[in-house]
Amino acid sequence: MKQDHVRICEVGLRDGLQMVKTILSAEQKLEWCRRMVAAGCTEIEVTSFVPPRIVPQFADSDEVARGALAIEGLHASALVPNLKGAQRAFDAGLQKVHYVLSASNEHNLKNVRRSTAESVEDFRRIVAARNESGLSRVKLGAGVATAFGCTIAGRVDETTVLGLVETLLDAGADAIAIADTVGYANPRQVRGLMRRVLELTGSTPVTCHFHDTRGLGLANVVAALESGVRSFDSSLGGLGGCPFAPNATGNINTEDTVFLLESEGMHTGIDIEALAAIRETVASWLPGEPFVGAIARAGLPKTFAPRAAAGAA
Amino acid sequence: MKQDHVRICEVGLRDGLQMVKTILSAEQKLEWCRRMVAAGCTEIEVTSFVPPRIVPQFADSDEVARGALAIEGLHASALVPNLKGAQRAFDAGLQKVHYVLSASNEHNLKNVRRSTAESVEDFRRIVAARNESGLSRVKLGAGVATAFGCTIAGRVDETTVLGLVETLLDAGADAIAIADTVGYANPRQVRGLMRRVLELTGSTPVTCHFHDTRGLGLANVVAALESGVRSFDSSLGGLGGCPFAPNATGNINTEDTVFLLESEGMHTGIDIEALAAIRETVASWLPGEPFVGAIARAGLPKTFAPRAAAGAA
Repeated sequence: MKQDHVRICEVGLRDGLQMVKTILSAEQKLEWCRRMVAAGCTEIEVTSFVPPRIVPQFADSDEVARGALAIEGLHASALVPNLKGAQRAFDAGLQKVHYVLSASNEHNLKNVRRSTAESVEDFRRIVAARNESGLSRVKLGAGVATAFGCTIAGRVDETTVLGLVETLLDAGADAIAIADTVGYANPRQVRGLMRRVLELTGSTPVTCHFHDTRGLGLANVVAALESGVRSFDSSLGGLGGCPFAPNATGNINTEDTVFLLESEGMHTGIDIEALAAIRETVASWLPGEPFVGAIARAGLPKTFAPRAAAGAA
Repeated sequence: MKQDHVRICEVGLRDGLQMVKTILSAEQKLEWCRRMVAAGCTEIEVTSFVPPRIVPQFADSDEVARGALAIEGLHASALVPNLKGAQRAFDAGLQKVHYVLSASNEHNLKNVRRSTAESVEDFRRIVAARNESGLSRVKLGAGVATAFGCTIAGRVDETTVLGLVETLLDAGADAIAIADTVGYANPRQVRGLMRRVLELTGSTPVTCHFHDTRGLGLANVVAALESGVRSFDSSLGGLGGCPFAPNATGNINTEDTVFLLESEGMHTGIDIEALAAIRETVASWLPGEPFVGAIARAGLPKTFAPRAAAGAA
């Protein structure tokens, strides 16, 4: 990927939907996907293969995954909580599967009722299952949640995060995600950690997953960008959060993130005006859910010149 | 000022109040000031010497200025729109007086019904009046509004802003403020412009005045910080905007700005918990006004370690 190209992965359909009250139909989810692709956002985490009794929103994950795979131009991925979920994602034919564990053992225990070390073993089993099924083309991403601190445990040491990144790479991760699950990160911390993560990962892709809980989401994106990160998760309208992290409301907003990145001279390939229209449709499907975002409220500056408009493909 | 010390000037009493519906009493304004000083925020723009028929909120500006001067530890300043206002500020005994003109001629015409060039002449008259009154100790700050773009004129050239900064310095400005009046700035633009402004200003203090209209307010603070800026205007609860700039809602929030700066390892001397209490009081005085802010909503991270707590005075 060129140094001025940034990949945005829309996580609204997964992280965004896991806490909302209204259950969307698979067709609505797929319309959301189709329109994101038309807007230039071709990476989408389309669902989560958690048991439906835990998150009923994802009872349709097989249907959504298969539907997403039929959308031309879409690079669909899904989150899986364990080997069983991974097997379902493989069976659906997904080519990208994301697994997440917490750097904070306390958060991991609360989130998935096992220690971080046990979750590492789960990831190894997922890698083994992928390899044994002859699915070596399927990319397995591994994410480190609570990488910048934890609402339960407080401070999370940089060395813990770096150690986990090494372990996950050794275990066979094809991509690494570093997540500020509870919105604790600040730019200084991001610069410090991400520089060291990128030293470890080399050519393996690295994504930052930020929440805007304490207002520093976009400042953290700039800090990560300065550290060399060229891939971010974000959610349309800032939808989402973590059901296990108190007050951890809101992924960084896709529209605002694209606005920031294009303003920074980066190329996302995404049309912000088109995002605004999708946002309106999705908001109409989810009455009562908070859709945040500065661009949606104030509009683009008259001076805004997206890279896409300049033909910098 | 040390490189890890950042000055915050509270502008909620001026920029914040100029658009609210409720008129606060002078005593309420002075209580706000006293409590800000107790919280460690000793720089406050306490009022504006505009004609009361234009902004009735500031009909008490003489009383507020005199009251503020009686508050121990407070470095009170006021905004003045013209020579007459400046004379009133001098008469009140203020030691810091701020004048603002727009880099965008169109914005200046709409805001004060004269061209930017005419406003420069006004500033020269204010400097002359100060000097002739033997008030050479009174510091005159000059601000450049719409320095990053204008909702009316669109793009504002960096050279226009830099030319104005030079002119204002030549005219006798003791301090320079660079304002993103309408919330158009992005971090790249801030880095580019502020580096060049600081080259021009040398030892003359420079403040950035950002609005968070399009979500980039705190990212712009980080960019300005990287450029060497160590002084920022902000408003408690993000109160305020510009009555002449459509959708230009909200100065950057004081609580969130202090949180960011302290997280970046800077020392502001300001107690965020105390700000939260003041915010509650002020919000109770201004029913129906929007008080925004991420820290007020989500609370400080468990991991937050302010410089003040570490005794780094």
